[in-house]
Amino acid sequence: MDNRAIGVFDSGLGGLTVVRKLRELLEDENIIYFGDTGRVPYGTKGTDTICRYTGQDEAFLLSKDVKMIIVACGTASSVAKSVTEKLSVPNVSVVQPTAKAAAAATRNGKIGVIGTEATVKSGSFKKALLSENKDLEIFSTACSLFVPLVEAGWVKDDDEVTVKAAERYLLPLKQKGIDTLILGCTHFPIISGIIQRVMGDEVTLISSGEEAAKAAAELLEQRGMLCEGNLGKEEYFVSDDIPSFAKTAEIFLGRSINDSVEKINIEEY
Amino acid sequence: MDNRAIGVFDSGLGGLTVVRKLRELLEDENIIYFGDTGRVPYGTKGTDTICRYTGQDEAFLLSKDVKMIIVACGTASSVAKSVTEKLSVPNVSVVQPTAKAAAAATRNGKIGVIGTEATVKSGSFKKALLSENKDLEIFSTACSLFVPLVEAGWVKDDDEVTVKAAERYLLPLKQKGIDTLILGCTHFPIISGIIQRVMGDEVTLISSGEEAAKAAAELLEQRGMLCEGNLGKEEYFVSDDIPSFAKTAEIFLGRSINDSVEKINIEEY
Repeated sequence: MDNRAIGVFDSGLGGLTVVRKLRELLEDENIIYFGDTGRVPYGTKGTDTICRYTGQDEAFLLSKDVKMIIVACGTASSVAKSVTEKLSVPNVSVVQPTAKAAAAATRNGKIGVIGTEATVKSGSFKKALLSENKDLEIFSTACSLFVPLVEAGWVKDDDEVTVKAAERYLLPLKQKGIDTLILGCTHFPIISGIIQRVMGDEVTLISSGEEAAKAAAELLEQRGMLCEGNLGKEEYFVSDDIPSFAKTAEIFLGRSINDSVEKINIEEY
Repeated sequence: MDNRAIGVFDSGLGGLTVVRKLRELLEDENIIYFGDTGRVPYGTKGTDTICRYTGQDEAFLLSKDVKMIIVACGTASSVAKSVTEKLSVPNVSVVQPTAKAAAAATRNGKIGVIGTEATVKSGSFKKALLSENKDLEIFSTACSLFVPLVEAGWVKDDDEVTVKAAERYLLPLKQKGIDTLILGCTHFPIISGIIQRVMGDEVTLISSGEEAAKAAAELLEQRGMLCEGNLGKEEYFVSDDIPSFAKTAEIFLGRSINDSVEKINIEEY
């Protein structure tokens, strides 16, 4: 038993896909979330910058005495693995569990990966997929505009601009005949309706945020580190103004978190 | 005479519209440019964050002993005016000179303003326009996606996604019958072809970057602070990786700057 909180971080809002799934699986757990909204996005930035930001995000969560850290950001998981590996607490990132789920889901062995520029450039999902099954065929595409489109709220299933952008990114992947598509950035499930529509119903979408939450739940159970006593407390921290985060988070989580968000200066960590 | 460099900063690439115009007007001047590529964009962030970033950007330029600072970022000019006002060196931001040029250009007194979310929310251009002429009618629209679209390079005149986004933002402005449109973010001139196409040829576009460069040239001349001796040196500093900045800057400036870019840690300033 360990009643300390689970720490979760992302460059912005995307990691809330992990929080939502975590809450579904483990309603008793306490969660501390950090969204680096003052420096979002990560996925268009370089390796050194992403590693430095990831280190600061993790240092902040450690200062809150978390029992585990979930790297709920596809970019940080892909590019700053060496930073996370040095952590003294158990940790889960999105790459490995998502690759495992995708390798189990595919029938024809052709898997697509979409993520930010930095994620795709790192080859992280490709490497993890090939270590699951070296015969898989993998096709990757960076979808750099998806994060700003999501953060701008252009997310309705019939949004003309987002649909056009999705077609430009995804139709070449569709032509490869993939039957499984990894949403390698935790922002992307927010537009899964559009992505599914462009790819067609026969393609299975794998949400990296949900797979990371499942892996975290399993790890805590295996190690006897689950919380006991129905606490279910949540604290949110951001590096930019609170209202815009709280508003979008509310739409996304389906409940108000206004009273539990605090702004911090992440550059001090 | 003052042979020290002119300091110019922006959240990213947009400020290069100022550099290009400065070079056209004052070929002898030395220029030191800082692009905060590690934290771009500014325009979707909150006031405190933008003020802190602006203060650091200016502190960095001052550490290089510049003779003047040009705030080549519509967002920083609009939101962090109080920070810039405390500077000990002469300074120019984009708002005032751009408003002056637009007020002189309009024939029917109806002016549109487009900028980032933070810029439009601040009302900076509206205030400056009304102080030029209180009878002007002003219509403002935040175009949050333009910065990521430009940074992604989706800037060709017939780019379907950018054209669709431009139509969504601009057609309501067109319907107001404006004859002059302020491009209140220095990134926007990079897609002026698309903006002009959507607005129609009868609408005059005013580039905030170019107006800031003209104002800076005038101020230096008035104060006898122009450089003498045909130095024309340029140094570029960024807070993220160099190659992606250098590549886009090259397309934009029409010449290579690879050897004169250096990466710094802006959080130390």
